[in-house]
Amino acid sequence: MACEAESSDESGVKLLSGTNDQYGGVIVHIIDPMDPDCFLSFLNSSIAHWKLEGKKGIWIKLPIQRVNLVETAVMKGFWYHHAEPTYLMLVNWIPPSPHTLPANATHRVGIGAFLLNQNREVLVVQEKSGHLQGTGVWKFPTGVVDEGEDIYAAAVREVREETGIDSEFVEILAFRQIHKSFFDKSDLFFICMLEPLSFDIQKQEQEIEAAQWMPFEEYAAQPFVQNNELLKYVNEICKSKMEGEYSGFSPVPTTSFSDQKSYLYLNSSRAPKRE
Amino acid sequence: MACEAESSDESGVKLLSGTNDQYGGVIVHIIDPMDPDCFLSFLNSSIAHWKLEGKKGIWIKLPIQRVNLVETAVMKGFWYHHAEPTYLMLVNWIPPSPHTLPANATHRVGIGAFLLNQNREVLVVQEKSGHLQGTGVWKFPTGVVDEGEDIYAAAVREVREETGIDSEFVEILAFRQIHKSFFDKSDLFFICMLEPLSFDIQKQEQEIEAAQWMPFEEYAAQPFVQNNELLKYVNEICKSKMEGEYSGFSPVPTTSFSDQKSYLYLNSSRAPKRE
Repeated sequence: MACEAESSDESGVKLLSGTNDQYGGVIVHIIDPMDPDCFLSFLNSSIAHWKLEGKKGIWIKLPIQRVNLVETAVMKGFWYHHAEPTYLMLVNWIPPSPHTLPANATHRVGIGAFLLNQNREVLVVQEKSGHLQGTGVWKFPTGVVDEGEDIYAAAVREVREETGIDSEFVEILAFRQIHKSFFDKSDLFFICMLEPLSFDIQKQEQEIEAAQWMPFEEYAAQPFVQNNELLKYVNEICKSKMEGEYSGFSPVPTTSFSDQKSYLYLNSSRAPKRE
Repeated sequence: MACEAESSDESGVKLLSGTNDQYGGVIVHIIDPMDPDCFLSFLNSSIAHWKLEGKKGIWIKLPIQRVNLVETAVMKGFWYHHAEPTYLMLVNWIPPSPHTLPANATHRVGIGAFLLNQNREVLVVQEKSGHLQGTGVWKFPTGVVDEGEDIYAAAVREVREETGIDSEFVEILAFRQIHKSFFDKSDLFFICMLEPLSFDIQKQEQEIEAAQWMPFEEYAAQPFVQNNELLKYVNEICKSKMEGEYSGFSPVPTTSFSDQKSYLYLNSSRAPKRE
């Protein structure tokens, strides 16, 4: 079989084409269809070539359409680093020393939103699924922070999606870290205070059974809340906040290394006002 | 070929054996070696069976040793959900409606550690690799929070590993969220204050070029720090903290749902003292 390679070494040996990373490694992204036998042949010559070059970590990104090459890569000593719906990232470490490859993402991030109207009523929902389904428990709107999404933006988005309420982010009151939450991953959950900008509730049909503004004391008195140490803490924080005796973390826009825009969350009594 | 299945339906049709999850789905964990043709046959009959049962999300966990079955699963409409070094998790959604499957982990979590001795000197290091290598820049010790590790514990561990200094966690002063940090994942970086319990530095040979206690003003005056908006913010916070005018978030142990132990991080001026 004639195998076509994108690149070759000085003596014409066909190689997989890759780009160097800044840690002495190589990243190979297979895009075009390839026969597993050709892939094996290129991989063998490429590994020999990378060894001579003193390369360390070798990354192979296989789109799900190239699933026919996964077994070959694993046979040659590659293992899984991470996967997303559209691709699988495999990795191998050439030197005899233990690898220093970066870990996969470890945490999911969620938010819970505390919104109060001028009658000291809190925005609460009942969910159609999950472990509180059918229990009649009223809870803060909650949701998941998407990859690439700022925490404060996720809080505003989730409140709008679940209840139709527009709001402005005020601050993060507290956060909780748990482990082994879902497929062994850890979980960070940020309790956020938001200022409502509208008050007419339009609940989301798919996920939300009911939504309302409820007197804070009535929310706090629910046995489900009273019997949960974490939620009791959150209640105390919310009460302190309502009395002006608590300050959480507010986001300030900043630039970091490589001029990347990002938000720094810090004690709001120290933070400059956002425009 | 004779294929042996672990389970079968009422009429004796061989099926993959799985456990139900609490969201109307099924989790299949393939452990024993299996021929791809047998797997295909079981998968076909199982999908028909799950459809009749009204199942939604179907999860197939394939240890890396079962890599020979990946292509078959993808051929039958499964896609990648996530992967770890030892296994690949594939998923499929049976109903015609859009899927409501939970997302993969989205964030990496890191820490930077601010330690001050009684001479107002800060603990700083120079790293052997990374983008500051060879620049002579002194920085706070930093590191990655492992999966399953508490943020406060990671800060204490990283300081001990890099410098040999024992310390006690005080509080999180601030944190920063960035996106597209590494393979498109987001990144949360917590700036932590720790109280040193020992002062003799034993630097780690592998990662650390140099480590020392340095007058805070000297650290802060470095051009690298002065030219970085984020680090300037952090400096201001550290100075406020040194003057007793700032409060960050401290961890309090608590129990959440299902009696899981976890830490809630909240404004330390409100937090009970840890024992």
